[in-house]
Amino acid sequence: MPIKSNVNYRNRGMFLEHIINDTNQYYLREDKAIIYKKPTPIKVLNVSYRSKKTTIINKAVFSETSTLDYNGIYKGKYIEFDAKECRSKTSFPLSNIKNHQMIHIKNILNHGGIVFLIIFMNNRFYLFDGKDLLDFVNNNDRKSIPIETIERQGHIINEGFIPRLDYISVVENIYFKENNYGEFKK
Amino acid sequence: MPIKSNVNYRNRGMFLEHIINDTNQYYLREDKAIIYKKPTPIKVLNVSYRSKKTTIINKAVFSETSTLDYNGIYKGKYIEFDAKECRSKTSFPLSNIKNHQMIHIKNILNHGGIVFLIIFMNNRFYLFDGKDLLDFVNNNDRKSIPIETIERQGHIINEGFIPRLDYISVVENIYFKENNYGEFKK
Repeated sequence: MPIKSNVNYRNRGMFLEHIINDTNQYYLREDKAIIYKKPTPIKVLNVSYRSKKTTIINKAVFSETSTLDYNGIYKGKYIEFDAKECRSKTSFPLSNIKNHQMIHIKNILNHGGIVFLIIFMNNRFYLFDGKDLLDFVNNNDRKSIPIETIERQGHIINEGFIPRLDYISVVENIYFKENNYGEFKK
Repeated sequence: MPIKSNVNYRNRGMFLEHIINDTNQYYLREDKAIIYKKPTPIKVLNVSYRSKKTTIINKAVFSETSTLDYNGIYKGKYIEFDAKECRSKTSFPLSNIKNHQMIHIKNILNHGGIVFLIIFMNNRFYLFDGKDLLDFVNNNDRKSIPIETIERQGHIINEGFIPRLDYISVVENIYFKENNYGEFKK
């Protein structure tokens, strides 16, 4: 049943975004962190004006972003990340991250920001640090990160009830507590 | 000539955004700060799929944002601001800032972020601190900030050539140098 499987995949595609948005609303309510998903940029091709205040977009296409999807602030620090669902059980394709996003990740690290990916793979959630991502890309010719590397270097984020995906507690452990990372892992 | 004046106003409306975007590109090139304008959020009402990869938006409307338009990182610190052109020469209408944006500004301040407005008024550019904005709102019943207050509490940003509006040097002076502000003005 290819149609059903297609629907499931779309649902899965929204699943990660959905639980992260839920979690971000929880963080906001609890005043723990302020993280928003950036709107998807669009290129507007045609508009009409229904009134002075209402503009109707009649034609537009989604366009690419130079940055990652989520950003905000936690304990005064700048945080940015992207959320990726990975269908492959054996490796995470680097084609998921565009070249200008790689440059952006490097820039954020250079400016002392916290930057990472949340990868949903094999029914697990991993926080994968931006520096580890850049190191992998710089030291490998591979077009994907093998699951073994993700399991070794990534940090499991446990799924919960409230909040549904408490990635900030993992951020706290990695970037604010472990001394071997320095103030920030660099 | 009302049509001409309308066109001028639209041009002016884009002018501030344009010079800030130019400036942000300069900061990015010079590796001084990483600040992006967030895309305007839209509510998609109808789409069609031209191919697996191309989605055409057939109907959409712009929607409101809970946050401010620009955010990013400077010297490891989270920065967020909004840019407002003000036609009135005597006061800045607070209707420019929505209630949920006020709450957002308060939250960002509580988390140690730098937050402000850039107000273009009387052909001058002012950086107006988020804390001063909240204080004004809390201590006044007025629906607008008089120009005298903006001149007294705001910080002039000089227009230049490259970059065109070097607001980061003003941020540096206000939030990173002046001891009377504490680490951050609070």
